[in-house]
Amino acid sequence: MVQLADQAAQNLEAVRRKKPLIHNITNYVVMNTTANALLSMGASPVMAHAVDEVEEMVAFAGALVLNIGTLSDSWVTAMMAAGRRATALKTPIVLDPVGAGATGLRTRTAKEIIAGMDVTVIRGNASEILALRDADSRTKGVDAVHAVDDAAETAKLLAHELGTTLAITGATDLVTDGKQVLRIENGHPLMACVTGTGCTATTITGAFLAVDGDPVSAAATALAYFGLAGEVAAEKAKAPGSFMVALLDALYTITPEVLSSRARISVER
Amino acid sequence: MVQLADQAAQNLEAVRRKKPLIHNITNYVVMNTTANALLSMGASPVMAHAVDEVEEMVAFAGALVLNIGTLSDSWVTAMMAAGRRATALKTPIVLDPVGAGATGLRTRTAKEIIAGMDVTVIRGNASEILALRDADSRTKGVDAVHAVDDAAETAKLLAHELGTTLAITGATDLVTDGKQVLRIENGHPLMACVTGTGCTATTITGAFLAVDGDPVSAAATALAYFGLAGEVAAEKAKAPGSFMVALLDALYTITPEVLSSRARISVER
Amino acid sequence: MVQLADQAAQNLEAVRRKKPLIHNITNYVVMNTTANALLSMGASPVMAHAVDEVEEMVAFAGALVLNIGTLSDSWVTAMMAAGRRATALKTPIVLDPVGAGATGLRTRTAKEIIAGMDVTVIRGNASEILALRDADSRTKGVDAVHAVDDAAETAKLLAHELGTTLAITGATDLVTDGKQVLRIENGHPLMACVTGTGCTATTITGAFLAVDGDPVSAAATALAYFGLAGEVAAEKAKAPGSFMVALLDALYTITPEVLSSRARISVER
Repeated sequence: MVQLADQAAQNLEAVRRKKPLIHNITNYVVMNTTANALLSMGASPVMAHAVDEVEEMVAFAGALVLNIGTLSDSWVTAMMAAGRRATALKTPIVLDPVGAGATGLRTRTAKEIIAGMDVTVIRGNASEILALRDADSRTKGVDAVHAVDDAAETAKLLAHELGTTLAITGATDLVTDGKQVLRIENGHPLMACVTGTGCTATTITGAFLAVDGDPVSAAATALAYFGLAGEVAAEKAKAPGSFMVALLDALYTITPEVLSSRARISVER
Repeated sequence: MVQLADQAAQNLEAVRRKKPLIHNITNYVVMNTTANALLSMGASPVMAHAVDEVEEMVAFAGALVLNIGTLSDSWVTAMMAAGRRATALKTPIVLDPVGAGATGLRTRTAKEIIAGMDVTVIRGNASEILALRDADSRTKGVDAVHAVDDAAETAKLLAHELGTTLAITGATDLVTDGKQVLRIENGHPLMACVTGTGCTATTITGAFLAVDGDPVSAAATALAYFGLAGEVAAEKAKAPGSFMVALLDALYTITPEVLSSRARISVER
Repeated sequence: MVQLADQAAQNLEAVRRKKPLIHNITNYVVMNTTANALLSMGASPVMAHAVDEVEEMVAFAGALVLNIGTLSDSWVTAMMAAGRRATALKTPIVLDPVGAGATGLRTRTAKEIIAGMDVTVIRGNASEILALRDADSRTKGVDAVHAVDDAAETAKLLAHELGTTLAITGATDLVTDGKQVLRIENGHPLMACVTGTGCTATTITGAFLAVDGDPVSAAATALAYFGLAGEVAAEKAKAPGSFMVALLDALYTITPEVLSSRARISVER
């Protein structure tokens, strides 16, 4: 869709120009990766989780990213405090419910976050998103056991119920606010062979939310941009180690023009 | 030894086919690296350390990896809970006693873990393994000050006393259950110039334990596979940054056939 | 300046020969990166933050590195304990006041550390260093909003008041103990596109402090060495992912001779 491809280019250009601060309260595994992804794309990352400072820090931020990948009590407390403050400041919030459905703690925490603040976008794999609605949807670990299409109908209902935007990543990505349904075809299978690519999709969504007031277009264009980075990386690298390096490079080298011409976002009628 | 080289190939093929979930409670420094190593080899990593969820998470896992590299109280509590549950479920456990011998906390915690659950394999450097038996064996930091051969006799005795399998890595690796002693000649000196290669050897051992019921052959074949990845990486890269990238690539590109032909495992008579 | 260029070469050679243990209590984002940087340059990293072991661990160390990048209460307690012990042992301490000026917690903690132990060198960006003196100097996040030259006069006064050495990194780096002012011209703009390069400068300063008793020359030569690594990396890589890999490679491949001939350190009269 031409309009959204242009919006993708515009969002990327705006991030590079404005360098929004993105406040991440995220998991230990991916902190380095997502900080580097934000720097590569032109944003400014900060990781801060102390309950004594998160409210102060989030006040500088263009978006707040909450990721429950390696959870413990004090981190949940900090996430709630930061999220309430972001809500008061009308700062967009993106949630990554890593492993929701795998353990009660994760499912419960994801729901607590959704209930306690205005979450703008939830980005997860199909299993994680299904777990937010259906108590019977179980998964193992943090990798999806459901395909994106299995989750499409539930996602539309859930987005409507929660009044939020859902972004489900997989072979094809899906973004919905309960009314519109967008599909993003960009991406590459090697992205599933590197840890933290889902979390990186989430934080890139945060950066686009900092410059694009429409959550549906922010999420869809972020996923197109990141998926395209995967495609560009796969042109250079055929195995996960060098692919990850090429992926960070691609976030830096992709121009708004290239993004506009290669983004593949379609709107479902 | 032809039999063990074939077993190595079989284990690698089984990991790629079954994609076992490997539950890691590990240190902050290497979480990203070991998650990527597991993904590169074809397994599915999960990092979870909250005491509220580890027992639930480990129930999905093919193996539990405990690594004391960056220790604190709540992590030890979680390790004990996860380990007791894994023991009850007969899920294999591999322990990495990082820095045992360097501080009382580390030596004590390693021994507490060994006493409190059925540890299937302990993987460490010579100094760490010696510290588990000999209170007088001191080391500095997390790098070995002893050679593998210094530890061979003690390791055989210790494995017998503890009824576990010990895997000691160094220039040559050694695996023993107190009766058999195996030596693995694969590896490359650049592996010592990258942080987390020991921890990665441990988690790869976990993945092989998930598909091979014999701890001695699981540990020896895992070390041969990882050592071979080091050799393959060194054919491409001559300095630590690019070597680490090539090492992750090699875990992905090595085929069971190549592993079978290049694994160098010998049994001591 | 020929003398300092020679000192740089001598320090690098001494680190590779003595392999000092560098004890880091640092942030989650950069732990892997700084451990790898220390290994690449030839030092031996250890990361340990448990209050139960830091005093024991720091006793083995050639330098203590304190970095407040991802702060919480128990980490501050451990930093204070480690720092007091290092002070008693006359072990050099380098402080990285990440994000000082951005939140009260960070500014307060940095000042508490400075007051509670003998800090040998403080390494920060201009905004962080200004925040240590001037309560009105505000920054956002962890990236500098001030240029190094804005901070030069304040730094000189502050170094004098605190009786410590300050190292401010930016396009040009500045080192001062309140009397001498040194400028280091090595470096490359891509270093600002990778997370943790500031923290890596800090830990490399720690390694040089372990072999050079003069804090001013240790800090200036460490920054010249690291800046040169950036220059060498930029000859190989044009985007952040591959640049980071090349940067670690360069720390390993730069010889004392190359460092001596390419270090650009000048003394202000």
